[in-house]
Amino acid sequence: MVGAGHTPFGRGSSDAISLMIKASMAAIEGASLSPEQIDHCFYSNAFGFTENQIHAGPVINTAIGAADTPSVTIESACSSGSAALMEAYAHIASGLADVCLVCGGERLLHLKTPEATAYFAMGSDYAVEGTNGATFPGLYALMAQEHMRRYGTTSEMLASVAIKNHQNALNNELAHIRKSIGMSDYLESPYVAYPLRLYDCCPFSDGAAALVIAEERVARRLNSELVQLVSCARAGGPAALNQRDDLTSISSARVAARQAYSSAHVGPKDIDVAEVHDCFTIAEIIATEDTGLFPQGEGGRAAAEGLTSIGGKVAVNPSGGLKAKGHPVSATGIAQIYEIYRQLTASAGKRQVDGAEIGMAHNVGATGGSCTISILRRMR
Amino acid sequence: MVGAGHTPFGRGSSDAISLMIKASMAAIEGASLSPEQIDHCFYSNAFGFTENQIHAGPVINTAIGAADTPSVTIESACSSGSAALMEAYAHIASGLADVCLVCGGERLLHLKTPEATAYFAMGSDYAVEGTNGATFPGLYALMAQEHMRRYGTTSEMLASVAIKNHQNALNNELAHIRKSIGMSDYLESPYVAYPLRLYDCCPFSDGAAALVIAEERVARRLNSELVQLVSCARAGGPAALNQRDDLTSISSARVAARQAYSSAHVGPKDIDVAEVHDCFTIAEIIATEDTGLFPQGEGGRAAAEGLTSIGGKVAVNPSGGLKAKGHPVSATGIAQIYEIYRQLTASAGKRQVDGAEIGMAHNVGATGGSCTISILRRMR
Repeated sequence: MVGAGHTPFGRGSSDAISLMIKASMAAIEGASLSPEQIDHCFYSNAFGFTENQIHAGPVINTAIGAADTPSVTIESACSSGSAALMEAYAHIASGLADVCLVCGGERLLHLKTPEATAYFAMGSDYAVEGTNGATFPGLYALMAQEHMRRYGTTSEMLASVAIKNHQNALNNELAHIRKSIGMSDYLESPYVAYPLRLYDCCPFSDGAAALVIAEERVARRLNSELVQLVSCARAGGPAALNQRDDLTSISSARVAARQAYSSAHVGPKDIDVAEVHDCFTIAEIIATEDTGLFPQGEGGRAAAEGLTSIGGKVAVNPSGGLKAKGHPVSATGIAQIYEIYRQLTASAGKRQVDGAEIGMAHNVGATGGSCTISILRRMR
Repeated sequence: MVGAGHTPFGRGSSDAISLMIKASMAAIEGASLSPEQIDHCFYSNAFGFTENQIHAGPVINTAIGAADTPSVTIESACSSGSAALMEAYAHIASGLADVCLVCGGERLLHLKTPEATAYFAMGSDYAVEGTNGATFPGLYALMAQEHMRRYGTTSEMLASVAIKNHQNALNNELAHIRKSIGMSDYLESPYVAYPLRLYDCCPFSDGAAALVIAEERVARRLNSELVQLVSCARAGGPAALNQRDDLTSISSARVAARQAYSSAHVGPKDIDVAEVHDCFTIAEIIATEDTGLFPQGEGGRAAAEGLTSIGGKVAVNPSGGLKAKGHPVSATGIAQIYEIYRQLTASAGKRQVDGAEIGMAHNVGATGGSCTISILRRMR
């Protein structure tokens, strides 16, 4: 990785394409590149159809001065951003490209909540879940109920995830929600889908994030502050919850994590900082278990004991996570890598994890039909 | 390539996901594989949102018995299918995968024509073209007008493309429109956008097509009837027509063709059979020029003289093309490769091009914002 860009998350003043152009230009400038040096562009904008624009690549490329550069749009629900990164990784590994731009962005706040919720439900197994009225808060609520029943996870443990991530976002000038919350705020917030309350749920956001990744020798010529994308692995899982053996774990995350650790020759104990897909607080708890940071059933207690805070055993979501930094769907997987890039280049300011050398990103599509795990390392 | 599947194109009796499952199963059976042997799946379904289903991969994979296999959805307007193929090609070239499934499908005939036209316009530069009422027939009509003005291309030349492709489709049992037309049918058909008449335009179709591609050693173990994907190249071009230097040529097609020929070590003269993106008759004429099959400005005359018919200098669109085989958007780029596969394995029945050894597919996104050129060769 040789450059990264990130617009503020929150209510954007422009369409997704404009946000993506902004983030892309920032990443290209950060990489000290001219746009024509990019061999291939990978874009994600899963809900572009709500703005009447699919085939985003040629529009963005024309605007950034790379009209002839090939592009493609990658979609994998909420894991679209990291899926795009995976394609760039494959192109560089194959030798088809030396320099790739990866950018994800979304505008969502022009939609009313019921509309946005309906569009999001398209990412589930719609025939099985969507048509029966199941939306993501409801599906994750089922996962939370089973986690509580089986492992004794409590509302206070869920709350501790929300409180930590809101706290972390106070130090992230790009975050959507920069507001400290306490246990009483959490417990007084209304239920969205029992046992999940308002403060268990991430917001919809507008925003974009971008990365420039390059083949190693090219990268070393471009930039001295480098982060290596050591491994990037994806796996699938049954689309609908009723096809799962276990509601307290996401099998695609476990499979992808195993592959990513194996090809990076590291294990969970080596991770200094992790950005995980906390679309709901329960999702962060399950993520820290699926990626082996904590044993199954221990994720809630770990959060409550401060083990996932900055300065704890492993800093989880120092950016504020989806929960507080925000969730512009297709930007999310790329924004996670942006945060790891900042952490590993020691440029994360007040939320810096001291001495971070190895980072991990965990990006889930829907309730786990897809998952990408990426492992990154500071380069010397 | 070790297997291929193709549903009938036309009015489907089921949703896009079901069509894609059907085509995928046929490709997997053709490859004598079990679904778990697939390392990665690449799906295209650009208009899935009209059926409330994005994130198609986990749903299809669960149905075909490959729930844990990673998947991703690839979109590049009408070149989505070939863009998906390119990603599979990159994964195999990188060593990340040995066996990939590529499948594109679409359901469009549940939409009324004005609705479908509006959705298609999302593939153009919507802010510039769509908001000003420009739809694809209008944009390609501008290209046709300029081609006629500059090169003397005539309505009769456009007609000869339509007549040939309708004729070819008579011998394709999977084609949407199996109806012979003559010059008077063409000339009596109403204008859609001057100078394009009804018979210059391809239909919207429902349908799906799928391919299994594998690393060479693996492929040789699986199947003895093999076709090699020798090269696959993509390029971009300015999104909107008003940003182009030349309306009579598509720059992305020229750039991609040059790259594809160069890495395959062949030239236009070596091509025995080509499937090109004839969304409108003028598009086939421009395609045969951009890919070097005929000199610029000569494509219309070549068609009128029968040089692009089966048995002519180079058979163009023996399947019937988008024009008569049909155009289920995301299936198209894959269906082109399916036809080349049939031709190069000498299994195209009555539309067989005798002794076909080298084939080419040309798949355009929108008016040329993207283009993929693939070159295939019969393997011995």
